[in-house]
Amino acid sequence: MKPPRPDPLARARLLTSPSLGPAVVRELERITGRPAGPAYTGEPDGPFLYVGDTLPDELRTAQLLWFHSVNAGTDALLASGPWPAGALLTRTVGRMGERIAQYTLAWVLAECQSVPEHAAQHSRSKWRRLPSELAAGRTAVVHGTGRIGSAVAGLLRACSVRTVGVGRSPRTAPAEFDRVVLAGSPEEATALADARWVVSTLPLTGATERFFDDARFAAMRGATFVNVGRGATVDMAALETALHNGSVRRAVLDVLPDEPAAPGDTVWRLPRTVITSHSAGITADEDVVTDFAACWEAVTEGRTPALAVDARRGY
Amino acid sequence: MKPPRPDPLARARLLTSPSLGPAVVRELERITGRPAGPAYTGEPDGPFLYVGDTLPDELRTAQLLWFHSVNAGTDALLASGPWPAGALLTRTVGRMGERIAQYTLAWVLAECQSVPEHAAQHSRSKWRRLPSELAAGRTAVVHGTGRIGSAVAGLLRACSVRTVGVGRSPRTAPAEFDRVVLAGSPEEATALADARWVVSTLPLTGATERFFDDARFAAMRGATFVNVGRGATVDMAALETALHNGSVRRAVLDVLPDEPAAPGDTVWRLPRTVITSHSAGITADEDVVTDFAACWEAVTEGRTPALAVDARRGY
Repeated sequence: MKPPRPDPLARARLLTSPSLGPAVVRELERITGRPAGPAYTGEPDGPFLYVGDTLPDELRTAQLLWFHSVNAGTDALLASGPWPAGALLTRTVGRMGERIAQYTLAWVLAECQSVPEHAAQHSRSKWRRLPSELAAGRTAVVHGTGRIGSAVAGLLRACSVRTVGVGRSPRTAPAEFDRVVLAGSPEEATALADARWVVSTLPLTGATERFFDDARFAAMRGATFVNVGRGATVDMAALETALHNGSVRRAVLDVLPDEPAAPGDTVWRLPRTVITSHSAGITADEDVVTDFAACWEAVTEGRTPALAVDARRGY
Repeated sequence: MKPPRPDPLARARLLTSPSLGPAVVRELERITGRPAGPAYTGEPDGPFLYVGDTLPDELRTAQLLWFHSVNAGTDALLASGPWPAGALLTRTVGRMGERIAQYTLAWVLAECQSVPEHAAQHSRSKWRRLPSELAAGRTAVVHGTGRIGSAVAGLLRACSVRTVGVGRSPRTAPAEFDRVVLAGSPEEATALADARWVVSTLPLTGATERFFDDARFAAMRGATFVNVGRGATVDMAALETALHNGSVRRAVLDVLPDEPAAPGDTVWRLPRTVITSHSAGITADEDVVTDFAACWEAVTEGRTPALAVDARRGY
């Protein structure tokens, strides 16, 4: 994706989504050196850039130079309509890698240290030895070897966990991984069989929908499955089967195909599973400002920002 | 503490506590090159070394050259009678630093990620956004700057937590700490006021009994208190007051002055507290063998083992 050309960018209006707080908007005005346009009505009549959570249909025009998303995931955005040709798409990652890594490690160590079980027996005034397990020396397989997957692997390593990344194209292993294997290769199946934990950080794209299917779960030998990516990357019926037959030991799901889960939803009946509230990778206002500023700097220097999304690949 | 002289050590018998498993005893025989003596009856008639959990009264004699404890804490051992003059005392630390560090980080991150609350609302089929907190940038004060305190600090740092050690004598800060302050100094009080977490790894000695008293808890401004050291280092009435007035936000107690806690014990009534089952720093058989072997090597070379305990100081 190419950055917008200097000429239209110089005269582009800055439009922002109504969901942005006034402090964020003020920072965007400071960075771009222009006022945030009045709330748009209908289609803008000249080039513009837009910062927000979703992109309304009337803004999907040839005049859109650049959309900066305040979220990391852009699947819903891209699925909701064709992407305007030539428009740059960037996203906010912020400290998401760090946040998701801490979420993941929290649940990995909670399992090792029987945290929920201790909390439960405390509430019954019960003092009973519960097992604790050292995470060190065990293997975690992390699907996704980008920023977030690497941050997860890096933090797991601090607890001396062995880390195997699974990528969808051949690439050099980021330093946080002991090694990286190709998705769908025999090496992936071997790694899954070895894994104490399988952590998915996958984005949702055409290629990752129901990526975790019967075959992938069947390759596991009692791993705990942690999903901090996207809910629809998992075939939930396959996960249920795997939890019942034990190839998956436990599941921690921060994301679901349908969120929020209604009280009567079948996901609540999955055995040995905890569903959390899509809370692993929240974005703070300061993250939006920091990441937009980095994109702005790249764009004004004629570079493609590191946070640019390939609208065809979807990430 | 000096190692035993070569001459009596060469002819010393190896005695082991009945609590040791046969695999451990075989390893001790291999390391020392002598058979483990038949179960002792009464006082041994020549020099001996003993490996076990407690030291029976009849073995507290001038013939005891060396006692290797299979535990890290030697407070109960030293409190149960005078230590035989000249006898070397060593202990098993094993991977205790690593284990206690993982326990501590598990509970720190469990709090940041609302792990018990998520588990509880899951059991009610409830999907509701719960707060999550990034540990990064917050301060943990760690009492004890030895092996275990350093391991705790080092692991907290992997989550970008600032670490302040509290020591009882002036010393160079181990690399795992951002800084070290003296117990009882104004700097300790300032650090406690700043702390998001206060973690105690203190051993129990005459100088640390009820170390955490009213004054120390009153210096905290909403820190969560984690005790992975010894229960009797805490004045439990002072902790209760602090939990009630909010200077302590939450408590996680792996150790208590009296263990196990009986069902009617007052400790169960402490607000916002979780009591775990003295499970943070378990010792595995392999830890005993590894640490004894290191001590044996030092002793046979005439050096004082790094795992020697000063019987007067108590650690």
